[in-house]
Amino acid sequence: MGQNFADRLLDAIARKGSPVCVGIDPVYSRLPDEFKNDLAGGDECLDAMLEFSLGVVEAVAPIVPAIKPQSAYFEVYRQRGVAAYYQVVRRARELGLLVIGDVKRNDIGSTAAAYAQAHLSGPDAPDAVTVNGYLGADGIQPFVDVCRAEGKGLFVLVRTSNPSGADIQDFADANGTKLYEHMASQVSTIGAGEGLIAQRGYSCVGAVVGATWPDEARRLRELMPEQIFLVPGYGAQGATAADCAASFKPDGTGAIVNASRSVIYAHQREEYAGLAWPQAVQKAAQAFADDIRRGVGL
Amino acid sequence: MGQNFADRLLDAIARKGSPVCVGIDPVYSRLPDEFKNDLAGGDECLDAMLEFSLGVVEAVAPIVPAIKPQSAYFEVYRQRGVAAYYQVVRRARELGLLVIGDVKRNDIGSTAAAYAQAHLSGPDAPDAVTVNGYLGADGIQPFVDVCRAEGKGLFVLVRTSNPSGADIQDFADANGTKLYEHMASQVSTIGAGEGLIAQRGYSCVGAVVGATWPDEARRLRELMPEQIFLVPGYGAQGATAADCAASFKPDGTGAIVNASRSVIYAHQREEYAGLAWPQAVQKAAQAFADDIRRGVGL
Repeated sequence: MGQNFADRLLDAIARKGSPVCVGIDPVYSRLPDEFKNDLAGGDECLDAMLEFSLGVVEAVAPIVPAIKPQSAYFEVYRQRGVAAYYQVVRRARELGLLVIGDVKRNDIGSTAAAYAQAHLSGPDAPDAVTVNGYLGADGIQPFVDVCRAEGKGLFVLVRTSNPSGADIQDFADANGTKLYEHMASQVSTIGAGEGLIAQRGYSCVGAVVGATWPDEARRLRELMPEQIFLVPGYGAQGATAADCAASFKPDGTGAIVNASRSVIYAHQREEYAGLAWPQAVQKAAQAFADDIRRGVGL
Repeated sequence: MGQNFADRLLDAIARKGSPVCVGIDPVYSRLPDEFKNDLAGGDECLDAMLEFSLGVVEAVAPIVPAIKPQSAYFEVYRQRGVAAYYQVVRRARELGLLVIGDVKRNDIGSTAAAYAQAHLSGPDAPDAVTVNGYLGADGIQPFVDVCRAEGKGLFVLVRTSNPSGADIQDFADANGTKLYEHMASQVSTIGAGEGLIAQRGYSCVGAVVGATWPDEARRLRELMPEQIFLVPGYGAQGATAADCAASFKPDGTGAIVNASRSVIYAHQREEYAGLAWPQAVQKAAQAFADDIRRGVGL
C-alpha cells in the first residue's frame, strides 16, 4: 500500500513550488519542423510524436510536479500508440514526475474494475486517472478500490471546461441545484470513504473543474472541501490565472492547473520565436508555473 | 461515404432474424478449462483470451447480426490487448458481422475528434462505438462527423443498466424531467442533424438504454423515435425478454439487445453441461436470439 496520492501530489507541488501540470497532447501536424517528413506514414508520425513527447517531459521535469498525457492522441495509433503512451508514463516517473492519465474511462462494476486494473494498477501505471461519473457510484468504486490499495488517485469529471458542458452539467433540480453540484456531492461522499483521506485532509478522489467557469469553481470549492481539483482550461482554452485561483483554498492548496497546447506547442508562439523547441517549451512551462503561482498568491 | 449505419444494422438484423448482439467480454479466470494453464503469465492469458474471443465470434456468426467487444477487458493487456481487440474486430467483419466497439469514450472537441479517429474511422475500425455524453454536444459532434462521412454509428449512454445509474441519471428538474430524459432530448437533436437519418427513418446516432429499467425505456422510446437503442442488461444482469421489449417499437424495430456473459460463458451453465464450449456458446446464442425474437413478437 503506497502513500495516499493526495499527500504525494501536495508534496510534489511543494517541492516544485507551483501547482501546475503539463498536458501531453501530441498531434503530428503541430510538431516542430524538425519532426516533419513529407513522406511520413503512420509509424513515422508516431515515432515523431513519441520522441517529441519524451522531449517535452524532459524539458518540463525540473519545473512542474506532474504531467497529464491524453490517451486519445496515442490511441489514434492503436497498439503502437498505447505502447508509446506507457513509454511516456515510464519516462515521466523515472524523472520523478507524477502522472495523471487523462483517459476519462467509465463503465459498470466488473468492466470498471478492468479499466481500473488497466490504467491505474501497478508500479508502471499512472499515479492517477480521470474518470467520467455519469454511471454513478458503482462505476467509480472499482477505481477507488485500486486507489486505496495502491496509493493512487482519481479525478472525477464534475464541471468540464468546454462550451457545451453546460448542456448537461447545468441541468437543475427544483431547488436550483445543478447537476454538476449533485455530481460534486457524490464525489465528496465517495471520496470520504474509509482510508481515502490523506494526512493533510485531502482525499485521493479528486474532481475535474474547468477554469473557464470560475463562479462555479468557487461554489464547488465549498461543496468539495476534501477534493483536489484538476483544473483544465488555462491558456489555449482562454482561462486566466485569476480564473484558476477560484479552485484553490485561501492557503493556496486544493488544486492543480493544467495547460497543454500553450506549453507543448510553445515553438509556435511569437514570444518564443528563435528558440530551439525544447527551450521554448521550458520557457512556456516556467511562465505558466510563475503565472499560476502569482495568481494563487503563493 | 458508406451506407448509413442505421440501415446497415436494420438489414443485418433482418437477415439474421433477431435483433441481438453478443458482447465479447473476455476474462481469463472464466475461460473454459482447455484454455487454462497453471503457469500462465500475462502474455499467455492474453493469447488464451484472444483465441477464445475469436472462437466465440465464429460460433455466433451464423446466428447474430452483431458483436460488441468490450475494450476494457483488452486494455488490461495494454498494447498487446489493443492489438487483440482489433484482431477480434477484423475477424468479425470478415464473417459479415457488424461490430459495436464498447469504448464509452468522451472528451472535448479536439480530443473527442482524436478518439473518433482512433475508434471509428477507417474500414478496419468498428462500425459503431458507445460514447458518454456528460460533456455535452461538442463532445459528441466529432464522432457524429465520422459517422456521417463514413457510414458509421454511435450509441450515446442515456440510461445505463447498473443499479447506481439512478444516482446521477434520475436527477430531476422542477418539471420532473429526469437527467436521462434530458440526455435523450440532446441525443435526439444531435441525431436529427443533416445527413444522419437513414432511409428507414432511424438515425446513425443511437442510444444506450438498459433493459433493467423497462418503464424508463418505454418513456425513452417516445422521446427518441429516430434512435436505435442498444439494450444491455439481459441475462447475467437480470432483465428478461419482456423487459427488453420495452425498447422496441410496435413493428419490432428500433433496438438491438446485448448479452455478454450469459452467452460467452455458456460452458459454465448447467443446461449446456457436457457440450464442447463452442457448441455451448452457439446454443446459448440461439436460445438468446429466439427468446428476444419471441419477446419482441417477431
